[in-house]
Amino acid sequence: MDEKTKLGHGADVVSMALKYGKNEHNIIDFSSNINPYIPKNIDKYILDSIRNCKNYPDVEYISLRKDIGNYLNINYEYIIPGNGATEIIYLIMKALNGPLAIINPTFSEYERSAKLNNIEIVDLYFDRNFKLDINSIKNKIDEFKALFICNPNNPTGNIDDITEVLDLMKKHNKLLIVDETFMEFVHNQSKYTLLSFINEYKNLFIIKAITKFFGLPGIRLGYGVTSNKEILNTLWKFKEPWTVNTFAENICKYIFNDKDYIQMTRNYFKEEIDFMMNKLSKINNILVYNTQTDFILLKLLKHNSSYVKEKLFLENNILIRDASNFKGLDESYIRIAIKDRKNNEIILDALKKVLGE
Amino acid sequence: MDEKTKLGHGADVVSMALKYGKNEHNIIDFSSNINPYIPKNIDKYILDSIRNCKNYPDVEYISLRKDIGNYLNINYEYIIPGNGATEIIYLIMKALNGPLAIINPTFSEYERSAKLNNIEIVDLYFDRNFKLDINSIKNKIDEFKALFICNPNNPTGNIDDITEVLDLMKKHNKLLIVDETFMEFVHNQSKYTLLSFINEYKNLFIIKAITKFFGLPGIRLGYGVTSNKEILNTLWKFKEPWTVNTFAENICKYIFNDKDYIQMTRNYFKEEIDFMMNKLSKINNILVYNTQTDFILLKLLKHNSSYVKEKLFLENNILIRDASNFKGLDESYIRIAIKDRKNNEIILDALKKVLGE
Repeated sequence: MDEKTKLGHGADVVSMALKYGKNEHNIIDFSSNINPYIPKNIDKYILDSIRNCKNYPDVEYISLRKDIGNYLNINYEYIIPGNGATEIIYLIMKALNGPLAIINPTFSEYERSAKLNNIEIVDLYFDRNFKLDINSIKNKIDEFKALFICNPNNPTGNIDDITEVLDLMKKHNKLLIVDETFMEFVHNQSKYTLLSFINEYKNLFIIKAITKFFGLPGIRLGYGVTSNKEILNTLWKFKEPWTVNTFAENICKYIFNDKDYIQMTRNYFKEEIDFMMNKLSKINNILVYNTQTDFILLKLLKHNSSYVKEKLFLENNILIRDASNFKGLDESYIRIAIKDRKNNEIILDALKKVLGE
Repeated sequence: MDEKTKLGHGADVVSMALKYGKNEHNIIDFSSNINPYIPKNIDKYILDSIRNCKNYPDVEYISLRKDIGNYLNINYEYIIPGNGATEIIYLIMKALNGPLAIINPTFSEYERSAKLNNIEIVDLYFDRNFKLDINSIKNKIDEFKALFICNPNNPTGNIDDITEVLDLMKKHNKLLIVDETFMEFVHNQSKYTLLSFINEYKNLFIIKAITKFFGLPGIRLGYGVTSNKEILNTLWKFKEPWTVNTFAENICKYIFNDKDYIQMTRNYFKEEIDFMMNKLSKINNILVYNTQTDFILLKLLKHNSSYVKEKLFLENNILIRDASNFKGLDESYIRIAIKDRKNNEIILDALKKVLGE
């Protein structure tokens, strides 16, 4: 099973609990960067979908794509749903015709999916403050055919205005792939999302999901958005049938219309990001990176990440993300999710103790 | 969207309803060959799983694999779960090192997944009565590296004792892949399943799913079984993370232990297969092929499949599977599922009318 463990993601609650002999249900998971609140009528929505388990999902997902299209205000034909954003990340690799540039540190599945599809990778990097430097792209513009950007970026939490990058890519006839999985947490997201460019820019492919913002990673629903018909045809050609389950298919009739929940979530994170940034800034021996989304990258100035991860797990039942295995980071980095206020106070206290030692 | 429509599976309830302006909920779907009965406490099982939607599925599926292992009486390390049998079919293509022989007519995803992975295909065929002819395999034994058999076979419904094929493959150092998705419907399945050979035969890979027997295609759970560590490592290497949703992950704690439901299902199909074979044999202008599973292949002696499909849909709200696009079949073949007695009588009446005309 060597290969699996190399995945190196967070959310390793089960394996950590097994390793340290803890009950997995007692663990507070700060390693997954997902909304701690889920739509409140989720039980009702799920129960309403049970009879659909008896049927195959629609292999073309017409109804689901229309629900997503209405939510985004985008033509449903431009939408291709997948088993989480992950399936879409793997599928878009089938549409590339040359090297892929990836801006690091970032989500490791971009590189993994590229490698498994024998696509050459050109590593670019954010600047020292994890902001995007367009010159780093321009300098290597002749070396790649497509560029992958996560915006806001995981694990750094930074967001960038990348409209200039979109124009640069268009000018050079290259594909821009943007993972906007965390975009809905950003308070002024309309300033940053590239969704409004979908109709005009055929070189743009956006990836989104219900996983993070709606707090439902177990349901498995992501989607790609593009007006490029050639890319859409390629993706449908390679797509395995029925990868989206009927719960994911049906729940979208409801959750996108739950405006109260959506607004509540956005308000909550606007306030809670400020609260966390403020409190974290008062803790010794860490550097806190600005975030506009639901997780925070910390640089440890005295300890290393594996020590802090183990200590928090053993003494506080808290699981954090050791961020040392992100390309471009090292053993001084950890990532924590922003959860509900009660749990946020628990991790603040725990961090104070562990880092003050 | 050209590529999607080429998939050509059954279960096209939504698109057919749209095409003919019918309400999809009024359609009786005989095109999907799945158990019409689902475990009766399914609502409870699903509700019990809802809190897990907030978490990522375990990327190694330890608990799920143990549940499947207990059900099959197989070491859980030999099990790799997937998003339906389909994901496993696509994954096993990554482990092939040469041409794949497929025995036709059969499920089209074997060929599709092979082609998308640039694997050469050697087409073999069942005999005129859709029984396996081992000589047809022996004659081409030097032309392929792996052999794919669906047993019982879809869409023909026949089952074969393939232990001799397993030995032949072993002798020639070739991989045997058996799709046993429909095996649990077979009354004397222990005589046919190759599960008991898993430990001893490293050249054996079996594919199963909860889709058909437990009547839950919308949940999306299949799995591969092999004791070949090299194959397992390759599959885990290529497997996308989190393809199995938390409902599929959790429901297996329950359904495999629902012995009453499992026995009831097996008893039901033993009787209902006889009932259907008997009644169908009295309908004019068709040839009925023997089945030991939950669907039946019919050869139309006077009409063509698209006519019968349209007629049944328009006049009786019945959707059947036009089987003409299976390689080796033609426009004289249709496939119908065995459903509950009430619906079975409805299709028998409808067939009598349409075919007697």
